[in-house]
Amino acid sequence: MKQIESIKEFGGWLNRYQHPSTSCNCSMTFSVYLPPQAETEKVPVVYWLSGLTCTDDNVRTKAGAQRYAAELGLALVMPDTSPRGDDVADEEDRYDLGKGAGFYVNAIQQPWARHYQMYDYVTAELPALIEQNFPVLPGVKSISGHSMGGHGALICALKEEGAYRSVSAFAPICHPVKSGWGEGCFSAYLGDNRELWKAYDATELIKSGCKPMPVLIDHGLADEFLEEQLFPQDLEAAYRERGAPITLRMHEGYDHSYHFIATFIGEHLAYHAKALRG
Amino acid sequence: MKQIESIKEFGGWLNRYQHPSTSCNCSMTFSVYLPPQAETEKVPVVYWLSGLTCTDDNVRTKAGAQRYAAELGLALVMPDTSPRGDDVADEEDRYDLGKGAGFYVNAIQQPWARHYQMYDYVTAELPALIEQNFPVLPGVKSISGHSMGGHGALICALKEEGAYRSVSAFAPICHPVKSGWGEGCFSAYLGDNRELWKAYDATELIKSGCKPMPVLIDHGLADEFLEEQLFPQDLEAAYRERGAPITLRMHEGYDHSYHFIATFIGEHLAYHAKALRG
Repeated sequence: MKQIESIKEFGGWLNRYQHPSTSCNCSMTFSVYLPPQAETEKVPVVYWLSGLTCTDDNVRTKAGAQRYAAELGLALVMPDTSPRGDDVADEEDRYDLGKGAGFYVNAIQQPWARHYQMYDYVTAELPALIEQNFPVLPGVKSISGHSMGGHGALICALKEEGAYRSVSAFAPICHPVKSGWGEGCFSAYLGDNRELWKAYDATELIKSGCKPMPVLIDHGLADEFLEEQLFPQDLEAAYRERGAPITLRMHEGYDHSYHFIATFIGEHLAYHAKALRG
Repeated sequence: MKQIESIKEFGGWLNRYQHPSTSCNCSMTFSVYLPPQAETEKVPVVYWLSGLTCTDDNVRTKAGAQRYAAELGLALVMPDTSPRGDDVADEEDRYDLGKGAGFYVNAIQQPWARHYQMYDYVTAELPALIEQNFPVLPGVKSISGHSMGGHGALICALKEEGAYRSVSAFAPICHPVKSGWGEGCFSAYLGDNRELWKAYDATELIKSGCKPMPVLIDHGLADEFLEEQLFPQDLEAAYRERGAPITLRMHEGYDHSYHFIATFIGEHLAYHAKALRG
């Protein structure tokens, strides 16, 4: 693991690393924000999964999350959204397949399967690396994300029962088997058998018996992708069907951008801090 | 004036406009953040001048300022850093001259003079436009900025005595006649007579008798440009020579980036709010 950047922010440190990933079979980049508290004690971690086209840089630059992480004493871990490198399969003319669009699944179709193992990477390899190398409390972690990364946060928390103390999402793709983005990635990475797709779909996971862990989800009503891609009502219905509570907030006027995330990230991190420190 | 973007953030609105500028003789773009309070009352304004290579987009995306503006009831006005357009003179292979590097002066040398009238634009034309079109308190304004824009904020406030209630700056170019960035732009825009440069140099303005208005300035001690370009000690010496107080804070570990700005922008906006609402 090699540190490639170190920036002081809000009294803590925003560091960036490259490391050889055994899951993704390539070099991966991630950022970590260590709050000031991490200088004297081990801190809980919130993992942030970003959306289509992003790297680790978008959230750390645009969300304003570090201010709250410093106040709350939380580390933030921000992975990339896909494997990278010249030998990694890609669709260069598409923003929603290949690099920048790992969709947080383990691909089983070639040419994707060789590197696109993002589910294992974010749920297992990266947390192990973090716990080995940083002053964090082992196993004390939560997860959040945006859009494709909101989908990622939901499926990681639902599938890895007990692994995350809390989960939240901004404008997540709640029912990807029904969305164009999900169909494009799932058919490429997982093949034509739609039954296999359901193992990476939050709504389908709840329908098929996954424990309905509490979730905090924010959507903007002016989100240009809300109708066609996100389907929060499907996830809400699945939770209701199970008799489980879901906190789904629909915000008048907000769009899909980081300005929307910036507005509510403080509430999300406070929500996670309560679960992590409670 | 044409609205080209409108994004809800922290309960207020981040809007973007294009308008024909009489000062710069071209179409100019700027962003305005209106806090929630602006829906029911007129609010004070903080002008933000950005640094080399920036447009109006950098600060609104990276600084995290809107959160504090919403809390404090301040409008933020974020102009571009130079004239733009195909017929505007430029040095395409340089980031520190021409487009993105207006340096907040009125150019008197061709080919620059036709469009590079950024001093008049930010001190006169833009405030008039803002006060005519937005729910702001006329004449109740402050100014801040970063690097080249920190220089801009300082010279605007010092030269336009009484026009700004307060001024602050992040990593400003405090003595541009001595810095490579300043020399490059001043010689191009103003010509070889260095005496003319001093009218746009904060340190020289204080030396030559400008009223030493109180300033709040933050620098990072890990700023890679501190030694060669910024010269805060010269401005401090000029203030001391005049027997005037200056708040110059040197922060261990911080660099020149927006992560540094994000860390302290809340304190700057609170400083301005006190002056604007006091």
